[in-house]
Amino acid sequence: MKAVVLERAHELSIRDVDLPMEVGDHDVKIAIDTVGVCGSDVHYYTHGRIGDFVVRAPMVLGHEASGVVVETGAKVTTLKKGDRVCMEPGVPNPTSRASRIGMYNVDPEVRFWATPPVHGVLTRYVVHPEAYTFKMPNNVSFGEGAMVEPFAIGMQAAVKARITPGDVGAVIGAGTIGMMVALAALAGGCSKVFIADFAKQKLEIAGRYQGIVPVDVNAEPLPAAVARETGEWGADVVFEASGGPKAFDDLFRTVRPGGCVVLVGLPVDPVPFSVTAAAAKEVRIETVFRYANVFDRALALIGSAKVDLKPLISDTYPFADSIAAFERAAAGRPNDVKLQIRVADR
Amino acid sequence: MKAVVLERAHELSIRDVDLPMEVGDHDVKIAIDTVGVCGSDVHYYTHGRIGDFVVRAPMVLGHEASGVVVETGAKVTTLKKGDRVCMEPGVPNPTSRASRIGMYNVDPEVRFWATPPVHGVLTRYVVHPEAYTFKMPNNVSFGEGAMVEPFAIGMQAAVKARITPGDVGAVIGAGTIGMMVALAALAGGCSKVFIADFAKQKLEIAGRYQGIVPVDVNAEPLPAAVARETGEWGADVVFEASGGPKAFDDLFRTVRPGGCVVLVGLPVDPVPFSVTAAAAKEVRIETVFRYANVFDRALALIGSAKVDLKPLISDTYPFADSIAAFERAAAGRPNDVKLQIRVADR
Amino acid sequence: MKAVVLERAHELSIRDVDLPMEVGDHDVKIAIDTVGVCGSDVHYYTHGRIGDFVVRAPMVLGHEASGVVVETGAKVTTLKKGDRVCMEPGVPNPTSRASRIGMYNVDPEVRFWATPPVHGVLTRYVVHPEAYTFKMPNNVSFGEGAMVEPFAIGMQAAVKARITPGDVGAVIGAGTIGMMVALAALAGGCSKVFIADFAKQKLEIAGRYQGIVPVDVNAEPLPAAVARETGEWGADVVFEASGGPKAFDDLFRTVRPGGCVVLVGLPVDPVPFSVTAAAAKEVRIETVFRYANVFDRALALIGSAKVDLKPLISDTYPFADSIAAFERAAAGRPNDVKLQIRVADR
Amino acid sequence: MKAVVLERAHELSIRDVDLPMEVGDHDVKIAIDTVGVCGSDVHYYTHGRIGDFVVRAPMVLGHEASGVVVETGAKVTTLKKGDRVCMEPGVPNPTSRASRIGMYNVDPEVRFWATPPVHGVLTRYVVHPEAYTFKMPNNVSFGEGAMVEPFAIGMQAAVKARITPGDVGAVIGAGTIGMMVALAALAGGCSKVFIADFAKQKLEIAGRYQGIVPVDVNAEPLPAAVARETGEWGADVVFEASGGPKAFDDLFRTVRPGGCVVLVGLPVDPVPFSVTAAAAKEVRIETVFRYANVFDRALALIGSAKVDLKPLISDTYPFADSIAAFERAAAGRPNDVKLQIRVADR
Repeated sequence: MKAVVLERAHELSIRDVDLPMEVGDHDVKIAIDTVGVCGSDVHYYTHGRIGDFVVRAPMVLGHEASGVVVETGAKVTTLKKGDRVCMEPGVPNPTSRASRIGMYNVDPEVRFWATPPVHGVLTRYVVHPEAYTFKMPNNVSFGEGAMVEPFAIGMQAAVKARITPGDVGAVIGAGTIGMMVALAALAGGCSKVFIADFAKQKLEIAGRYQGIVPVDVNAEPLPAAVARETGEWGADVVFEASGGPKAFDDLFRTVRPGGCVVLVGLPVDPVPFSVTAAAAKEVRIETVFRYANVFDRALALIGSAKVDLKPLISDTYPFADSIAAFERAAAGRPNDVKLQIRVADR
Repeated sequence: MKAVVLERAHELSIRDVDLPMEVGDHDVKIAIDTVGVCGSDVHYYTHGRIGDFVVRAPMVLGHEASGVVVETGAKVTTLKKGDRVCMEPGVPNPTSRASRIGMYNVDPEVRFWATPPVHGVLTRYVVHPEAYTFKMPNNVSFGEGAMVEPFAIGMQAAVKARITPGDVGAVIGAGTIGMMVALAALAGGCSKVFIADFAKQKLEIAGRYQGIVPVDVNAEPLPAAVARETGEWGADVVFEASGGPKAFDDLFRTVRPGGCVVLVGLPVDPVPFSVTAAAAKEVRIETVFRYANVFDRALALIGSAKVDLKPLISDTYPFADSIAAFERAAAGRPNDVKLQIRVADR
Repeated sequence: MKAVVLERAHELSIRDVDLPMEVGDHDVKIAIDTVGVCGSDVHYYTHGRIGDFVVRAPMVLGHEASGVVVETGAKVTTLKKGDRVCMEPGVPNPTSRASRIGMYNVDPEVRFWATPPVHGVLTRYVVHPEAYTFKMPNNVSFGEGAMVEPFAIGMQAAVKARITPGDVGAVIGAGTIGMMVALAALAGGCSKVFIADFAKQKLEIAGRYQGIVPVDVNAEPLPAAVARETGEWGADVVFEASGGPKAFDDLFRTVRPGGCVVLVGLPVDPVPFSVTAAAAKEVRIETVFRYANVFDRALALIGSAKVDLKPLISDTYPFADSIAAFERAAAGRPNDVKLQIRVADR
Repeated sequence: MKAVVLERAHELSIRDVDLPMEVGDHDVKIAIDTVGVCGSDVHYYTHGRIGDFVVRAPMVLGHEASGVVVETGAKVTTLKKGDRVCMEPGVPNPTSRASRIGMYNVDPEVRFWATPPVHGVLTRYVVHPEAYTFKMPNNVSFGEGAMVEPFAIGMQAAVKARITPGDVGAVIGAGTIGMMVALAALAGGCSKVFIADFAKQKLEIAGRYQGIVPVDVNAEPLPAAVARETGEWGADVVFEASGGPKAFDDLFRTVRPGGCVVLVGLPVDPVPFSVTAAAAKEVRIETVFRYANVFDRALALIGSAKVDLKPLISDTYPFADSIAAFERAAAGRPNDVKLQIRVADR
């Protein structure tokens, strides 16, 4: 079966790979339709590792996927052949201590697609548990379905924030994840969401959404913009989505007394953190690790048109041109938000 | 000063009333612009009482109001002359035990406009504390401003529900309050909101909003409609906004396991309540008493266009025709959602 | 293998039963030591059914159990032969929708010991999943271990209440479950817990615990007692553990504005419920269905001596006298809180 | 009126001071009985400032106080002459935005005793609002009453943690505040609380409490001790009460996946903070700024004997020897937890 294989850092190939296709009682077999190119895929391509996760053997890339069910296990009840689906790429041990309390995302036993040594899904078929496979509403395209995975990170951030209806939100960083966070926060109850960045093209894309207010930090710092718009009170929820250490200076100047800061970006090194600045406003700080129990919610919001991810799909490549897609993603064009690869022949 | 006075049950007059106009240090004086006619106003008109609150002396009606600041007290800092505002009609003792924990709405000392023996605001001017007077965004009209009070009840219900982004909501009852609840729940994070009623005209009005799904219970019970759309799982949050005892049969059939029921409607008599039905799904039940800390949130959502209340303003009467407005409200036309009275000469 | 079998209503026997003893990869085999007699066991004995659950075939009784691990499945990692354990009697489908959000107790697929048609554990051995088997601290006896199941209901109630440290609690009903709730609430952060009943013997037992205040409702209604002790404010959390419809009159008179009511008792028929009484204080109402994720917490509290359940074990019968134990439980002596049966020969 | 006055850094005197004694409608006048010596008092004495708060004029010290009501304002209803009370030292603007949401502690307008330029209460009398004056249970001594203020910080930390009954807690730092936090966490629902320090005398004092487990970090790091005792899972809640930057390395190694970290200590400079370490366990981080709405809860726990603060009162000085008390506190004896000054002649 043909797959996009990362042989080692800097070396991608499209070649046959032998992948297990046994369909267990609670599994479904899915014909992959569309796969998004994620920053982590690109990072494995360019660096051969992310932190302690090192590519030591050829690995199929890709974990943002949608497709069609082609076979169902004997005990599957909620899906049937022909269902259009998207898939949660991490599969936990369902009886682990973390899973039992509903936080299966922090189960250390999670097996996650395209995280060494687990293969990803840039290939024709995959077998996956029914429990982590989600039927898409009819009006959600395969392209949007493959966007659910990155959007799920925004959803997890919005869930953790415990938004109160009408909250003012602010997001630091208008990259792909920052935009996902802003859209999830807005759909999740914020009245408006400021989004701050240096990159004008990203701000221009984000600013096309009703309710998202771009803040060009070349012109005005985020805390000043938010203070002006909130009667010097601050944002109820501030999301850090840049991963940059400098953002930490602004977080506690942007948030209101008693507000919440959600850390989504992951700075490589420890950042300087002012406990007194956080404590003076008695801020709650939430962190995010992937997501749990949000795929169905994400699909509901996309299906009801509260969230429109289509403008963020910058381009779609045929499977045969997958390597070109990765090269473009690695190069990083200022107008690109998300590149996708269509695996299926349609 | 001319005011709409309820002399006793069934007897309204527009006449001069002497009302205190002293502006304290922390008060503002407001020229009233628009006042909505509330079901409670109408109920005092038609019955002379609501439960233990009895109209024993002539009382000015009206508590859904917007206007313009014309004078500010010596220590007022957040408002100035000319500001367009709407007002929270209940004023608590700010140092009471309930107020100190942020639940000033359940402070027994609250003084609430047009609740005997406190006068309402269907008159030219009112003096009100700065703390309960809210500046409206420029793009919010006086008519919308006078809708903030009823919408605040919907907001309180949405806040109490602790909506998780993407939740499926359901509202029993498509009267004015039911619509407010549905709009608040939708803006507050629900992916879609079912609204159930027998009255087709109300459903038709509600159904014009994207994301609100009308359920004509003449044709299909709400639990069946919700089950079908949620894979037999149920709604995450169900709001009771009909005040009818029959709704209680449906509540726990409509909600999902582990979901939430919010009781907004107030049945006059005790209702039969199945603890086993609630417990079998381990449902959380929230109740709502007016609102606290939601006026600013409501204005933020209206100002950012996430909530559009304009289609619910069915008609606006000049002040001189106030009694006709009350008579129409008391008659209850099927297409009427909210009638308003313009007090100001504009 | 000898077991206590309910042949049909009113007919118990101790006889050989053939029960499956296959130890799966994730299972442990446990030699049962002690089993408590639960009100539900007695109810099946005296009525042959509980609601829709009808005993249609002979069924082994007993679901409050402790024992010793005698064999472990191939993939078991947290338990070993010889471990002293107690067991959660309900086993859910771990990948169901309810289980994935951490509420496996409301999974409709739960299989629960001694609930028809599932056999209980009043027998020598049982095979059970590792995930629902909990190692007991060394200082916790088998008798206490078999009390963890009923105490878990109190724990679930205390968890749902979301006690704030120092809360005043109140429990209606001083039966076995009422006492469990009171002890859990006290250990779980309440400063004191009132417990109300007509039965003086139960109150006397409950009142021996430091921090539990018995209220003899023959002498003074609970709302009056709580009002007097709280400066007319009310209890922060009120637990209904009597299952009696009359309790519902007192609940909202006992709780403080903005407080919480937890419904633990299950009245057979619908109860009259005053929405206005609940709403006037904006009360949150929680319901309880069995428990989830509390066995480890219960064991921690017992092991650290914050909770002492030993005084509530009224008597222990040898296995051969099991039927006598059931007869005594069915008769209901005023001083009995919990009867237990020792299955093991020690 | 004689008072303990900090003239400037390093210079204390006991001398007459003229303080306002007008009793407003909602105020009470209190004869001070006992005042604790706080680390902040000592810091002003030794440094003349804490951060931006600089002693620019002579200031009366002391903010941990109990006493007896000697006069009540015209509208006071909950207190009467002769009531034994303790007082919350910070008084907010009750209608500020922060106060209205119940977080009056983060109101920037709070006036706090012995924080420049506001005088403290190491003097004979003080006038204070009824709303922040709390009647003590009869069995709580004036010495314990003066401990409520520091204990309130522990309470605030325990409240913010949202302890689930049976949680395992861990506290870094066994100083006065660390001990307060440990006791509040234990009373607030933890099954046990580890407390870690280098100082053996502090650990010895803490370890006398049932349920508190001292960890001598000279012998074993806290994460290792907690891992061993929790089956490698970690503590549910970890409190940082040392204010030392090194503690931040241990926080996320000690806490369990999905657990909570509460930052109580205030390091002077920014600390290095590993977002990836926090995110890998999706930890929630809470901060604490003084306290709100916990004095009544603290008194309830002390009054019901769930918390015993008496062993932590190391010594009590007569008012005339106040300067000696400050000198001893400044010197810092290893066995001293709290020094108090008796102002009243008893």
